[in-house]
Amino acid sequence: ARPKVGYFYTGKKGNQLISEALKKMSVKDYKAMPVVIKEESSVYDAIVMMFLEDVGTLAVVNNRGTLAGVVSRKDLLKVAMGKQNLQDIPVSVIMTRMPNIITCHIDDPLIEVANILIQNQIDSVPVVRSIENGLEVIGRITKTTITKAFVELGIDKDV
Amino acid sequence: ARPKVGYFYTGKKGNQLISEALKKMSVKDYKAMPVVIKEESSVYDAIVMMFLEDVGTLAVVNNRGTLAGVVSRKDLLKVAMGKQNLQDIPVSVIMTRMPNIITCHIDDPLIEVANILIQNQIDSVPVVRSIENGLEVIGRITKTTITKAFVELGIDKDV
Repeated sequence: ARPKVGYFYTGKKGNQLISEALKKMSVKDYKAMPVVIKEESSVYDAIVMMFLEDVGTLAVVNNRGTLAGVVSRKDLLKVAMGKQNLQDIPVSVIMTRMPNIITCHIDDPLIEVANILIQNQIDSVPVVRSIENGLEVIGRITKTTITKAFVELGIDKDV
Repeated sequence: ARPKVGYFYTGKKGNQLISEALKKMSVKDYKAMPVVIKEESSVYDAIVMMFLEDVGTLAVVNNRGTLAGVVSRKDLLKVAMGKQNLQDIPVSVIMTRMPNIITCHIDDPLIEVANILIQNQIDSVPVVRSIENGLEVIGRITKTTITKAFVELGIDKDV
């Protein structure tokens, strides 16, 4: 029987409590706004959008509005070093293309997505939802998102 | 008096445990290797090094070997879009220059550096130590470092 002493021993260690608290943090509560570009846009336009929105990765969508690819600052830097005219190259030529894209869902635990970022050495994962004929992009989880969540964890909350 | 019931109630909530665990994580235990380039190197060389080392930020050092500046993937992308020959531009022309660089020290709590990354919207902070005539670069803390630390927190450890 539970001892009647006004408090309740859960039998859990500190680390277990921490790992349980982390598992409760979900993509839904932390995801950033999606930043998308159409696949017929030029590499030049992609770079401009990346600076204007101050993001490191863009989601590329097709004319049905579903996820076609992703393009990173690294991809764009590689092309920008070449001699070609950046306004002549469509972003679809240099993007990482479906189905080679790792995505996540709104109910995934944030810690799982953080692990995906590390294991796959990527900076960002699009948050998607299945719609007819493809995936709709509804957000993104980046290393910035995770760093913000980490900072927030350190704030003493009275719950 | 402490109740003699074979266990010990600390009176701490889960969130308090997390924030205490976080305060114990220090830069020393998580910092990544520094990646440095000399200030007379070209922008072209900086981009090549960034790809070879697969990092997002380089520390730039002067001929005394102390910190002179930092250069990010974003800085390099901006220059690469221009019409200039990247081999003709020294990295010192485009870098963020001392003393406008935020640095951290080996004994700083990781959570404080994470907060610095977010507040200043930067991806990386060099870890430095004071030597004669300047700062020696001994590591770096990036959003990748923080994401790794976050993932590690979520792993159940038997302590």
